Amino acid sequence: MLGRLLNTHQQWLCRRLADLGCVVTRQVTVADTAHDIEQAVREALSRAELVITTGGLGPTSDDLTRDLIAKMLNRRLVEDSAIVAHIKKFFTARKRVVPPGTRVQALVPEGATVLPNPNGTAPGLALVVNPNPFRSEGQAAWLVMLPGPPRELRPMFNDSVVPLLKEKLPLAGGFICRTLRTTGVGESIVQEKIGERLRRLVESGLDLGYCARVGQVDVRLAARGANAPGLIREAEAIVRRQLGAHIFGEENDELETVVVRLLTERKQTLALAESCTGGLIAHRVTNVPGASAVLLAGFVTYANDAKAKLLGVRGETLAAHGAVSEPTAREMAGGVRRQTGADYALSVTGIAGPSGGSPEKPAGTAFIGLATPTETIALKVFNPYDRETFKQATANQALELLRRAILG
Amino acid sequence: MLGRLLNTHQQWLCRRLADLGCVVTRQVTVADTAHDIEQAVREALSRAELVITTGGLGPTSDDLTRDLIAKMLNRRLVEDSAIVAHIKKFFTARKRVVPPGTRVQALVPEGATVLPNPNGTAPGLALVVNPNPFRSEGQAAWLVMLPGPPRELRPMFNDSVVPLLKEKLPLAGGFICRTLRTTGVGESIVQEKIGERLRRLVESGLDLGYCARVGQVDVRLAARGANAPGLIREAEAIVRRQLGAHIFGEENDELETVVVRLLTERKQTLALAESCTGGLIAHRVTNVPGASAVLLAGFVTYANDAKAKLLGVRGETLAAHGAVSEPTAREMAGGVRRQTGADYALSVTGIAGPSGGSPEKPAGTAFIGLATPTETIALKVFNPYDRETFKQATANQALELLRRAILG
Repeated sequence: MLGRLLNTHQQWLCRRLADLGCVVTRQVTVADTAHDIEQAVREALSRAELVITTGGLGPTSDDLTRDLIAKMLNRRLVEDSAIVAHIKKFFTARKRVVPPGTRVQALVPEGATVLPNPNGTAPGLALVVNPNPFRSEGQAAWLVMLPGPPRELRPMFNDSVVPLLKEKLPLAGGFICRTLRTTGVGESIVQEKIGERLRRLVESGLDLGYCARVGQVDVRLAARGANAPGLIREAEAIVRRQLGAHIFGEENDELETVVVRLLTERKQTLALAESCTGGLIAHRVTNVPGASAVLLAGFVTYANDAKAKLLGVRGETLAAHGAVSEPTAREMAGGVRRQTGADYALSVTGIAGPSGGSPEKPAGTAFIGLATPTETIALKVFNPYDRETFKQATANQALELLRRAILG
Repeated sequence: MLGRLLNTHQQWLCRRLADLGCVVTRQVTVADTAHDIEQAVREALSRAELVITTGGLGPTSDDLTRDLIAKMLNRRLVEDSAIVAHIKKFFTARKRVVPPGTRVQALVPEGATVLPNPNGTAPGLALVVNPNPFRSEGQAAWLVMLPGPPRELRPMFNDSVVPLLKEKLPLAGGFICRTLRTTGVGESIVQEKIGERLRRLVESGLDLGYCARVGQVDVRLAARGANAPGLIREAEAIVRRQLGAHIFGEENDELETVVVRLLTERKQTLALAESCTGGLIAHRVTNVPGASAVLLAGFVTYANDAKAKLLGVRGETLAAHGAVSEPTAREMAGGVRRQTGADYALSVTGIAGPSGGSPEKPAGTAFIGLATPTETIALKVFNPYDRETFKQATANQALELLRRAILG
């Protein structure tokens, strides 16, 4: 709660649970104090059939969850000899003495199922609260406690919690979620193009969501129950008809994933010359496994000298039009294509800001150049944002120009 | 709640609020449904003197927050002509027609303060709920509504919410938080070196926290009250004595910030030759304003051909030792330094994985080369992680090698 740590559990668990047909209704974070933890668990048990807690199972003095929950539910804590043995083995394998205090992690509330932790010492715990004292009718609830470190929590969820949920909590199945990712069109235009046309399906139970990211808008179609597949299929057809070429990918696709996929399929290659994006396009492309077969080379040519010497941009061009200009973008793309022999060469030159702008070329101005086997084209864009957003938005526009060129 | 989006608001807002002396007690995420949003806001108002909501202020049909809150609090929504003008100007500046439907963003609940949004169309809103119908004694609460996109929310918080809170909600002061950032040493070693020596100060009220990130460990020292400055000063002195050169920065410093600062002070320049980090180092360096005065050029030489042709790595070196080797790293650094005339040239070559490893050079192996005005050195590292973590960890080690070299 001091903002020193990013919570990635919410996204990861919500995603896995949604895939199982179980949509999470509420996520709560509280401080490591007995009062706050207890109140949050009570409230969750009063609301839901499944409550998952993360963290607070370790050996240090701020790990309170196991004890508090046992007390709340009137369960004795019993030492589990198999866990004691696991902890000993864990430290011995690492040639370390078992620290005193780690033994509390072997305490298990009576009746709880132990979820093994091959990647750490604290096991997970699962128990059914039945009758549930926090609901008016006493409806049963499952309470699952998982350790905090992601590399312990995630395998434990996959290996132990998923089978448990499938056995004990047959979840409302038939939940389908489909994401279509668009670029080059704003959120309100997306809605204008599809909102009205999807109204009938929304009235029949389609859940329609929009998510605007830098230079991109995701359209999320979700539905539940027997007619879900039909609803989603019909909705997707409408969205595709309306948004057409603006849709660059599905689900987790990024523009760079799509570009690497297209180039790999076509056995074609790419080279980059980046000024104001400063290596971001190369970084994004090389995040994609298999990029090495596609990306021949990248240049980060921030300085004019580097543009001239490494890419062969002509001195007259720089003098007459400036480094941030359409002719420079074209010569950068042409130069890097000649240098590397790549099929496609993409260039970017612009003013990231905060400083460096002028009245006719304010900060946020950029030119994108693209040299292909048949032509060299250029595009002027304007992204008057903070430095990092400017880089992301410009990189998106460059990758989108490339994607459309590859597709012809 | 479907796990399609990572929530970064919690960390960012908690951090900023803690810095203001206001520790957040609870963070809640709910789905975009009227019932869930309303329940969450009611509960928050029943608990706290300050409630901040994020998201749900946009123009699409799933943006419900403004309307719901006005209804809950019995406030009429009134169109604000200044916001209408701002929205028109926003679209005109982008040479786009104002989409119908964006106008709902100009609706303001009676009595609310408008928080301007220079980076988007939806303004933020702040209002005081007094008397507060959700608390037994009717104690007043502030309710602040912020837009969802981080690049709109963050400047709005800094520019409009912070002054408002300082004026309207004099916060429990005297909270001090100091972060010292280390690299090249694991979390348990950090704790071993300082934990025992800080025990006395912890007993006097020092809050000591560790946060492990990729290749870095932050030490967080916090205290509250009259003796906080003394406690923090004494604790910082101990941490600095014990961890010495491992401390690369403070607060929000990143390795690239520190490196650009050191080079700028010394009027020295940098060039990069990246293979397995694929432009990430260039991207990180160019995220720092002012990097253009320091970074002469960067090369992303994924392919062997590019290493040979662009950097002058010798064919014999590649044949005898392979692309991932100490001699190649040295020749890459030397080559890019000659090519660009930079004072420092940093190179990286390695195997990001998942494929491409061998028994003697498994995926995760990398060599870092550094050519300085006086010598060329190389370092072998091993980061057997997923692709993106590998790139981050290797980039950190390269930047740290450079930092130490600059400092001599």
